Amino acid sequence: MRVFIAGVDGYLGWSLAMYLQARGHEVAGADSYHRRDWIAEMGSQSATPIRRMTDRLQAFRENFNTNLQFIRGDLTDYNFVWNFFRAFQPESIVHLAEMPSAPYSMIDAEHASFTHTNNLIGTLNILHVMRDVCPDAHMVKLGTMGEYGTPNIDIPEGFFEIEYRGRKDTLPFPKKAGSWYHQTKVHDTNNIMMACRFWGLRSTDIMQGPVFGTRIDEMGDDERLLTRFDFDQVFGTVINRYCAQAVIGYPLTPYGKGFQKRGFLPLRDSMQCLTITVENPPDKGEYRVFNQFEEVYDLTELAFLVQKVSKKLGLKVEIRNLENPRMELEEHYYNPDHQHLLDLGYVPAISIEDEMEIMLKDLMKYKHRIEARAHALIPDIRWDGSRRKVGFLDKKEG
Amino acid sequence: MRVFIAGVDGYLGWSLAMYLQARGHEVAGADSYHRRDWIAEMGSQSATPIRRMTDRLQAFRENFNTNLQFIRGDLTDYNFVWNFFRAFQPESIVHLAEMPSAPYSMIDAEHASFTHTNNLIGTLNILHVMRDVCPDAHMVKLGTMGEYGTPNIDIPEGFFEIEYRGRKDTLPFPKKAGSWYHQTKVHDTNNIMMACRFWGLRSTDIMQGPVFGTRIDEMGDDERLLTRFDFDQVFGTVINRYCAQAVIGYPLTPYGKGFQKRGFLPLRDSMQCLTITVENPPDKGEYRVFNQFEEVYDLTELAFLVQKVSKKLGLKVEIRNLENPRMELEEHYYNPDHQHLLDLGYVPAISIEDEMEIMLKDLMKYKHRIEARAHALIPDIRWDGSRRKVGFLDKKEG
Repeated sequence: MRVFIAGVDGYLGWSLAMYLQARGHEVAGADSYHRRDWIAEMGSQSATPIRRMTDRLQAFRENFNTNLQFIRGDLTDYNFVWNFFRAFQPESIVHLAEMPSAPYSMIDAEHASFTHTNNLIGTLNILHVMRDVCPDAHMVKLGTMGEYGTPNIDIPEGFFEIEYRGRKDTLPFPKKAGSWYHQTKVHDTNNIMMACRFWGLRSTDIMQGPVFGTRIDEMGDDERLLTRFDFDQVFGTVINRYCAQAVIGYPLTPYGKGFQKRGFLPLRDSMQCLTITVENPPDKGEYRVFNQFEEVYDLTELAFLVQKVSKKLGLKVEIRNLENPRMELEEHYYNPDHQHLLDLGYVPAISIEDEMEIMLKDLMKYKHRIEARAHALIPDIRWDGSRRKVGFLDKKEG
Repeated sequence: MRVFIAGVDGYLGWSLAMYLQARGHEVAGADSYHRRDWIAEMGSQSATPIRRMTDRLQAFRENFNTNLQFIRGDLTDYNFVWNFFRAFQPESIVHLAEMPSAPYSMIDAEHASFTHTNNLIGTLNILHVMRDVCPDAHMVKLGTMGEYGTPNIDIPEGFFEIEYRGRKDTLPFPKKAGSWYHQTKVHDTNNIMMACRFWGLRSTDIMQGPVFGTRIDEMGDDERLLTRFDFDQVFGTVINRYCAQAVIGYPLTPYGKGFQKRGFLPLRDSMQCLTITVENPPDKGEYRVFNQFEEVYDLTELAFLVQKVSKKLGLKVEIRNLENPRMELEEHYYNPDHQHLLDLGYVPAISIEDEMEIMLKDLMKYKHRIEARAHALIPDIRWDGSRRKVGFLDKKEG
């Protein structure tokens, strides 16, 4: 299948290009390199020493015996999208090209606006170009489980049948996102749903939980094929951040009470799920939602797991809760469905502890790169708009 | 109360400035004049001969013995919003400054993107400036009943308690908007709700139905005080369009089957409701929703009413259905609540037929201005992205 990956220089995008190529798909991609700039803006760097795109493409050619069609460009530029799609005629479009960080979007009005413009306009352009250039293509859109927030009822996959005052309808499940970033994903969801209804487009909206992991098998031993690994307060997701902390002997730092629950999955499962989705497109005009995660954990359970695996590797790791820079429920009901991908054949590939062990071993090689940016691990971006480093809740010396 | 009106040069904004001033409030306003440009872009003009802002301000001073503080500016410019709010310190912010047309937003990718950027960034800037400059102020935000779409169940005012799989929660009512414009209002709703939750702001989100009417009493006989009246396919709402058609002897043109139901209210009731809302702010941190309309009609009932009133005034009027350029349900269940404003004292001021009579008499004075832009009455902007004039459904000569 001809698959276009938007955001092919990113954590998921670069991995997916290899994963799909190894399975016989024809892959093309685009990226604006924004992510590299954002990480620099946050004073951090990828723990893995990622190469610039020209070197990545060279390594891709050597390892997969084929070229990855790549153009640097920005999805907010309509002409760029139109020209790329016109030439490549994608059958599947995997849209991983949005600004993906809650804290980044909460910095100030400018970052909130940038997040809205970047994420919404990019997706609007893809929808319009699909309508006019490749109306049968399938957009696999990366949303987030965070769109739902943490309601006090079960979370279905996108839609639910409700009875209200004696009448019934099937409606989109109400969303309650917790940052400007998460809101832009909700806005996208509403926009994509409408475009499918009006224009007969097909799309799968992936409500993905936080992903963790340093590698997939397709990277082999070629360091040039490594994907990025961010551990800073802004772009590092929780398990990745914990593992980076463990490797440099810094305490693991759940925010607040630490009983926030989320659904997590390893990078290799994210690749498996996205590929299953690409290979099983919805009907014309169909908009469907997959909740994409393997299992639900709370932040404290995860810290204990990282601690346990670290100990096995001879790393001594403390857990110390930090003041929560976010505004969120720290103890709540959480029971989201996640059946659609299992029905299509998703089989979790590895236990969470085995994956953590691989991660910690990988990261130990790059310990110096994490140490060099250790300051970036502790949040200072707060949901009230101020910017002050948070402190430990146990009041011991920090 | 110190009230800032965003969009004070518009249909509602200009009327509201007078309505509030006459009730003793201190009014300031801003406008970018975008609306004047959009109407020109659509090849149309206001039926009422509206004056440029400098003349309007002069007339305002003469009639209300006070100055209306005005600065030309754009809400998407953060510094503009910050400086205005810093100086004026509004207690109430009535936000009427969004691009308000469904067809305009559906023209192409560029208009869809403009609508998103203009509407969302303006509101985001207001929210951020409120947080930092006037955190106790109340934002009265113009949304639309169109955010809800036409679900097969009753529509509450914003929130509903649901039971799902044996558990209960009170959640935002699911939205199903029918154009990019309507989607931007849904996006705003989600954003404002979150800002109130995080930052303790207070806001009333007005889900308003289509407004009709040429005047409010405060305009008196001074033609310089008239508000704009658009009748074109893009910015003319249905009753206003029907009345313009009646005056020039053109058939009234419901779209499609013509059984689409909406909740309508006259301009003077819109002013009454907005003023009640301004004068009864919510608690700190409270986000509330008012469904703002007087009564539900379908498009055919409305055509018959305009026909009846026209006949009384000696105008002979036909009704001929047009091909529907939109994608929407043309026959559907529709039962939205609208109790909150009635509870606060809203008393509908006039019967729909009496208001139509006033409108037709006003518009007869400006018949030549409507005739000069009669071509703008018939839609060519279609929801499928094409631009072709629609035809009459009865196949007679058009």
